[in-house]
Amino acid sequence: MRTSSSNENTSGAMELEEGCEFSDRQKTVVSVLSSKEPPTLWQDITGTIKEKVNNSNGKSKSFSLSKNVSSTLRGIFPILKWGASYNLAMFKSDFMAGLTLASLGIPQSIGYAGLAKLDPQYGLYTSVVPPLIYAIMGSSREIAVGPVAVVSLLLSSMTQKVVDPTIDPISYRNLIFTATFFAGLFQAGFGIFRLGFFIDFLSHAALVGFMGGAAIVIGLQQLKGLLGITHFTNNTDVVSVMKAVWEAIHQPLRPYNFVLGCSFLIFILVYRFISKRNKKVFWLAAIAPLISVVISTLVVFLTRADKHGVKIIKHVQGGVNRNSVADLQFNGPFVAEAAKIGLIVAVIALTEAIAVGRSFASINGYYIDGNKEMLAIGFMNIAGSLSSCYVATGSFSRTAVNYSAGCKTTVSNIVMAFTVFISLLLLTKLLYYTPTAILASIILSALPGLIDVGEACSLWKVDKLDFLTCMGAFFGVLFGSVEIGLLVAVAISFTKIILNSIWPRIEILGNIPGADIYCSKRQYPIAVDIPGLLIIRIDSSMLCFVNSSFIRERVMRWVDEKLEASVEESEFKLKAVVIDMSNVMNIDTSGIAALEVIHKNLASEGLQMKIVNPGWQVIHKMKLAKFVDCIGEKFFLTVGEAVEVFLAPVTVTVEK
Amino acid sequence: MRTSSSNENTSGAMELEEGCEFSDRQKTVVSVLSSKEPPTLWQDITGTIKEKVNNSNGKSKSFSLSKNVSSTLRGIFPILKWGASYNLAMFKSDFMAGLTLASLGIPQSIGYAGLAKLDPQYGLYTSVVPPLIYAIMGSSREIAVGPVAVVSLLLSSMTQKVVDPTIDPISYRNLIFTATFFAGLFQAGFGIFRLGFFIDFLSHAALVGFMGGAAIVIGLQQLKGLLGITHFTNNTDVVSVMKAVWEAIHQPLRPYNFVLGCSFLIFILVYRFISKRNKKVFWLAAIAPLISVVISTLVVFLTRADKHGVKIIKHVQGGVNRNSVADLQFNGPFVAEAAKIGLIVAVIALTEAIAVGRSFASINGYYIDGNKEMLAIGFMNIAGSLSSCYVATGSFSRTAVNYSAGCKTTVSNIVMAFTVFISLLLLTKLLYYTPTAILASIILSALPGLIDVGEACSLWKVDKLDFLTCMGAFFGVLFGSVEIGLLVAVAISFTKIILNSIWPRIEILGNIPGADIYCSKRQYPIAVDIPGLLIIRIDSSMLCFVNSSFIRERVMRWVDEKLEASVEESEFKLKAVVIDMSNVMNIDTSGIAALEVIHKNLASEGLQMKIVNPGWQVIHKMKLAKFVDCIGEKFFLTVGEAVEVFLAPVTVTVEK
Repeated sequence: MRTSSSNENTSGAMELEEGCEFSDRQKTVVSVLSSKEPPTLWQDITGTIKEKVNNSNGKSKSFSLSKNVSSTLRGIFPILKWGASYNLAMFKSDFMAGLTLASLGIPQSIGYAGLAKLDPQYGLYTSVVPPLIYAIMGSSREIAVGPVAVVSLLLSSMTQKVVDPTIDPISYRNLIFTATFFAGLFQAGFGIFRLGFFIDFLSHAALVGFMGGAAIVIGLQQLKGLLGITHFTNNTDVVSVMKAVWEAIHQPLRPYNFVLGCSFLIFILVYRFISKRNKKVFWLAAIAPLISVVISTLVVFLTRADKHGVKIIKHVQGGVNRNSVADLQFNGPFVAEAAKIGLIVAVIALTEAIAVGRSFASINGYYIDGNKEMLAIGFMNIAGSLSSCYVATGSFSRTAVNYSAGCKTTVSNIVMAFTVFISLLLLTKLLYYTPTAILASIILSALPGLIDVGEACSLWKVDKLDFLTCMGAFFGVLFGSVEIGLLVAVAISFTKIILNSIWPRIEILGNIPGADIYCSKRQYPIAVDIPGLLIIRIDSSMLCFVNSSFIRERVMRWVDEKLEASVEESEFKLKAVVIDMSNVMNIDTSGIAALEVIHKNLASEGLQMKIVNPGWQVIHKMKLAKFVDCIGEKFFLTVGEAVEVFLAPVTVTVEK
Repeated sequence: MRTSSSNENTSGAMELEEGCEFSDRQKTVVSVLSSKEPPTLWQDITGTIKEKVNNSNGKSKSFSLSKNVSSTLRGIFPILKWGASYNLAMFKSDFMAGLTLASLGIPQSIGYAGLAKLDPQYGLYTSVVPPLIYAIMGSSREIAVGPVAVVSLLLSSMTQKVVDPTIDPISYRNLIFTATFFAGLFQAGFGIFRLGFFIDFLSHAALVGFMGGAAIVIGLQQLKGLLGITHFTNNTDVVSVMKAVWEAIHQPLRPYNFVLGCSFLIFILVYRFISKRNKKVFWLAAIAPLISVVISTLVVFLTRADKHGVKIIKHVQGGVNRNSVADLQFNGPFVAEAAKIGLIVAVIALTEAIAVGRSFASINGYYIDGNKEMLAIGFMNIAGSLSSCYVATGSFSRTAVNYSAGCKTTVSNIVMAFTVFISLLLLTKLLYYTPTAILASIILSALPGLIDVGEACSLWKVDKLDFLTCMGAFFGVLFGSVEIGLLVAVAISFTKIILNSIWPRIEILGNIPGADIYCSKRQYPIAVDIPGLLIIRIDSSMLCFVNSSFIRERVMRWVDEKLEASVEESEFKLKAVVIDMSNVMNIDTSGIAALEVIHKNLASEGLQMKIVNPGWQVIHKMKLAKFVDCIGEKFFLTVGEAVEVFLAPVTVTVEK
């Protein structure tokens, strides 16, 4: 085996081997053209889908019903897997992590509910049901589930175009629940049908830009709370918001809101700075929001600052999640809108959750199955939509706190959910005097984590077009809307792919002296020409209608130049052209026509055309189009082989 | 040179060469990573544009002002080139061809003017000015210029959506002239800025479908003339037309129209059949339409059949082309519409003219420069729009007649133009009694040439997706409109390109026994594994956000399968994974991240990762992203090299 695979190194018997070389050659000619038929388009598509479907359960080949049921159950409910080995020490860690999480989660949930233009209690509801479902179905140990800023913004910005929350809050809320239901349905559907690749359509670069833009938009929205503005724009773009702010600051101002908000924002940031410096007091950052809420509420209550213009939350409805099945609207006029909003939100929420889950999983050295994760998130949102919750997902900031607090399993989510549950039962009355400015500062404090300038810089360094995608999403969100941002990013990404595959790339190859290697002469200037031979490599993966005429023209021009240059030194006169098509993966009828024209033109100049290693599909189509019959058996597996035959043509003729 | 390029064949001194092999290896490692920086995106774009611009004048390197002016003039006006050697014999041929052309062109022009919903004389005008301009600027010798069916249909179907020709025929006509002006401007612009590739966006497959669909739509439109229907639909789709016909045949019928039209259609087809059988009487097919017009006009005149329901042309305005500069509307409300119509018509007209020109040029063994041709066609349409013509282009049927009639140069177009010119002066009155049904049968007789069933079959055989494009255009035109057909075709074509480049293709390679060649094991089942090594080739041209996670998962699954399968036979235990990236032409940040994950996972399994020959841009980006630093110098130029180093690791270590 070893000797045969590296036969050019085996010394001895080379005389004999050289003789054999050309019978090998005969064999490989046959083998390029007589390679098996490639899978048809249909087989290719079904094969890939099948593989995607069997991706994770492919390993269990031996089938046994009971075993299968239990393994499927364990697959869907990972809690059954690790539940058996769960112990008190783990629970202690999870309990502490859950409490820390709740202290961050309660104020955040109320704030994000405001961002989604819902009453505060809905944020709290969303921190109860979805985390419980995720705890039994989710496969990540660190993810902390709840409402998140970007999804809240996305939901409100899209839904308020359909129903105005200030005019008809009930319809608005019902539409949000319906969109949540659809989001869950889409997410679970992606998981069940293994369509995880769907979220890949939003590239990392687009996500960085989108998150950054959304963070700034969310920050601007908080100016409403910070400045205590009553009438604010419904648009999310920078221009509208700045205009609204400009108009507002010409009204009588309420400076207390601003002072209160800013001082507590500074307080939270200082706490976070301390806890970053000293990992032992990481919980300072986590509980700072809760402390802010408590202190500011006390201050307002004691000073009755609400009489002096400080805006307060006022009534928060107590009691636990209400059954909202009846609120879902599948017959109303907005079902299609709800489904559309659901789909967009589903994709964004999944992207965030899976990005969070995977990055923490890789820290702890395990791998998350995206499809299972989608199923869990989908079910948790469906369940949420039936119990007065809006779209929840894995949150960056909470997951980081959960991880720092030493969570061991998803039990920390359960603890958090129960804590919020108890708060809903007992503590909602205490939130009456909480100033809205505090909620704004809590949201603002979570935003810097969403803006990843370093990543944007590295995108610029590595890939300018990825950076363009990122900036497209960023400015699209900033100056258009969240949907425009997403659309721009996806459009740029796909334009990039089209450009990349149709760009007519073509290189002249030369031989690397002392080796049987042929490389681009532009890339490796040490490569030298083979006299009498022009070796051209087509680097476009698809020789198709868009680039074939350009490639044809360039090949013919190179041939003409070479012919002109070599007309005097007759020994080095161009005799043959080798076209290396190993990078051409597909061809269409226009591409084949271009090759036919090249062949015809070369023949009229008295030049041979040799084709090297076209892609599998390409060979097949060339055969079907009778191109192979037309140019004869001038197909080679490698450039080296083609050159060899060219340099020793007499031997071949004799052997034939 | 010869020995060094095929060093594995040189017998003797192999002991020595084997020693050298690894110092060569050291050199190539350096050279993969230290290859020159690839051209940046910007250089790539400007370089390609520059090349496109210099494409045709690249050869004249020695510069001389007077010589340059004269050569530029000769370039723009090819008549200056061949004019000097023009002689009487050639003129005789051209004269006869021109007369034959006119006898076909006059009835066709009147018919196509009806298709464009213009008065008959405009068709004749269009056969005067554009052919004269083309004759001095065009580079094809065979093309016969004039109005064509598809362009006439396209113009009327788009323009009548803006202005209804039955309500406001003057505005409609002016809009047509303005669109013609824009079409000429775009065509000349494509020529001047060498944007010929723009017409490549309409692939051959799309054109076949589009022409076929347009032919059927045009045929259906002729039912109006054949059945003598007065009120007909303005829509071009099959459903509307059939509905209109259905309604019309429930009205009192005018059978004479139908009888007249059908009998002359049969007459023309029989003449054509005879002339196809016997090449000597080729002119029978060419003059049949004129004979039909003369006979039918006489019949109607003598029998006064117009009193019995036979529809006739009636008044055709005599006199030659009117100056129409004042009719162009650049301030009106429809300028943008006119420009849009102009652009679409420009592309279709160019595609047809260049396809016609190239196919006849290749019969006669010369080559047409697409950019010069566009310039000529553009100027002829600009000139046409100023002299009451609508869009003219090279016509399939007339060019064929011109060629068969033995034309030698574009002088046949001049002869044709003068003949039409004289007819306009003298003969328009004679057309009063010409029945419209005859015009319908003349148009119908030209349609079969536009429907290329054979080509559609060969598309189906060679490339299913090309066939889909073709059918998309066909049914789009048939059931939607001409624009929808074009849009569908372009959309399918580009979707195909996207799918092709993002489809996650990946293959396991094996060694072809007895050679240093590594091929896909699926494609070449004789390829065998190298023990301890898994060789994977990525066949997607772009490793990007859409396919990187799928490719990453598949690589890891193959590695897992290989590890499981080989766990017992420890000698063949998997030790390294070679990833052949020679087909990967570009990568984005998601792709690099996927490779990083693969590297990390392989390292955690104790496996080496070797990367073979990534594309030029890919290497560059890997360096920028510090991926090269992260995995070390495990880059190879060929799979063979990677295998060689793997199989003789000790030697390498010693050498190091």
